Amino acid sequence: MLIRDLTTPALLVDAADLEHNLATMSAALPGPRLRPHVKAHKCTALAKRQAAHGHRTFTCATIREMEGMAGVGLGDDLLLANEVVDATRLGRIRNARITVAVDSEATIDAAARGGVREVLIDVNVGLPRCGCATEDAGRLADLARRKGLNVRGVMGYEGHVVGLDQRSTRTQLCEQSMQLLLQAHALVGGDVVSAGGTGTYDCNTWANEIQAGSYALMDTAYAKLDLPFRRALCVLATVISVSPAYAVADCGLKALGMDHGNPSVDGATVLFCSDEHITFVPESPTHVGDRIRVWPAHIDPTVAYHDRLHIVEAERIVDTWPVDLRGW
Amino acid sequence: MLIRDLTTPALLVDAADLEHNLATMSAALPGPRLRPHVKAHKCTALAKRQAAHGHRTFTCATIREMEGMAGVGLGDDLLLANEVVDATRLGRIRNARITVAVDSEATIDAAARGGVREVLIDVNVGLPRCGCATEDAGRLADLARRKGLNVRGVMGYEGHVVGLDQRSTRTQLCEQSMQLLLQAHALVGGDVVSAGGTGTYDCNTWANEIQAGSYALMDTAYAKLDLPFRRALCVLATVISVSPAYAVADCGLKALGMDHGNPSVDGATVLFCSDEHITFVPESPTHVGDRIRVWPAHIDPTVAYHDRLHIVEAERIVDTWPVDLRGW
Repeated sequence: MLIRDLTTPALLVDAADLEHNLATMSAALPGPRLRPHVKAHKCTALAKRQAAHGHRTFTCATIREMEGMAGVGLGDDLLLANEVVDATRLGRIRNARITVAVDSEATIDAAARGGVREVLIDVNVGLPRCGCATEDAGRLADLARRKGLNVRGVMGYEGHVVGLDQRSTRTQLCEQSMQLLLQAHALVGGDVVSAGGTGTYDCNTWANEIQAGSYALMDTAYAKLDLPFRRALCVLATVISVSPAYAVADCGLKALGMDHGNPSVDGATVLFCSDEHITFVPESPTHVGDRIRVWPAHIDPTVAYHDRLHIVEAERIVDTWPVDLRGW
Repeated sequence: MLIRDLTTPALLVDAADLEHNLATMSAALPGPRLRPHVKAHKCTALAKRQAAHGHRTFTCATIREMEGMAGVGLGDDLLLANEVVDATRLGRIRNARITVAVDSEATIDAAARGGVREVLIDVNVGLPRCGCATEDAGRLADLARRKGLNVRGVMGYEGHVVGLDQRSTRTQLCEQSMQLLLQAHALVGGDVVSAGGTGTYDCNTWANEIQAGSYALMDTAYAKLDLPFRRALCVLATVISVSPAYAVADCGLKALGMDHGNPSVDGATVLFCSDEHITFVPESPTHVGDRIRVWPAHIDPTVAYHDRLHIVEAERIVDTWPVDLRGW
């Protein structure tokens, strides 16, 4: 099948760029040094490619992602890097090693009650989101152990740092965050110090595993940073209307994560998106029926709108992978 | 089943508020005066409720929506209010009256080639998106008729007007837009003058049918206007982490359309959303495990992330409707 035969909008993944990204990352962070985050792609076929590059430990953001990864035999060591109040479904997952993040008595209770056996203490390292205070980590670890849970260590996501432009600033703020995490680790014990993302994959030298996910497909937000990863995913769209001042294609708010702003179109200025449209000013003559490639600003909520990824080599579709980890 | 038994995030639709909205709209625009737009809810069960209120003509934004509506017997008069370059799938739909918007020779060709028999000439009435120039509408109608298509009339969406705060401004700019549409109609002929949206449903007195969709479920953007419709849909979320300064619930960028900005939480200030989280500052004590209701800023791209709507009366779930018109 050829790209031109696709119904649009459709997600295209360049096979060579994806392979470049996976190989580059696994050279920098081999095996368990990387715990790939599946939330960015929500696709077990892509996770299998990451496994083929030597990574057998994975990070998830939802229970559904955990269930789906275990279901396809990628359950050697699955971390739900998020708090849950009801761990019943997690406790029911078979043929997988399941670890869940906890940051409170209530989430520790939920893990124990739900039949989960292993936890990480989630520590707030500067992002105003989940995670306990550093000084509270030891108390929570003791509580978890008293409830019979194996406390494997700590995690702390420097999400306020990973997207910063300057590498020197990223490194400096990452160190501050990781000092907090290491202080917590000293109180908690265990083997795991889990942190990081695509923007700090090589400057975070304090954590012993990095939870990067966006590196595989990338987006325009991460592409602004000085990273060795290529933008591997775009949304293919068809031009449906052309006026003297602008053109319109069939890729809108229901095909694109918009929290990081408008997507980009090569050789064009994007004016705005509506539900099923993108209005843009092309630099060269554009005609109804032309295909364009729209580069999303944020990969994770873009992929979550689609049910499949088309893997392409030049104009040929060489594989189609279901986005099978959607929903909750 | 009770709301407290739901996995979160989950879409809740208040049955009474939905009914209020449907009844209010059908009283103002009975029968074919309203051509409900299904893109806002993408749910044939909800469309059947609209049909029960007397509306048998519907508006769609995608071919998938057209196919789905015809498939459940709601195909009396379906308008695809959008241009398509390949109308083959439209031409194959059986047991339905199919009309498609056209605004160029290429889209007229596509309709004729694809086996579609009826079209509306789509006119640009001020929104920089699809639609031909007013003065071009007659030429395109003639071309369509020469190709054997039945030209039913015109459509033109005043999308730059529907969201404006002041009713007087909306009415004034709506009139300007509709003067353009009526000029085009004089050149085109036919019975249909189709336009409008929830924000102009009662001030657009020039079109003979209104394409409103958001009125059924509403969102915080439309709730700012002086409209008689109630916010009927929210995203139920669970608080998973509480710190002294803020709380975090499990409803993020993959559960919310974000192009109109952050959602709202009653009795709280929303700080930001990330993929699976909303961080907010509650005004009253909040605990892990509490349920909160998150009000999306834009309904259409919110619903498109979810696979079902839960219809609720107080704390009870009285029905669950699939969001069955997603995708393309």
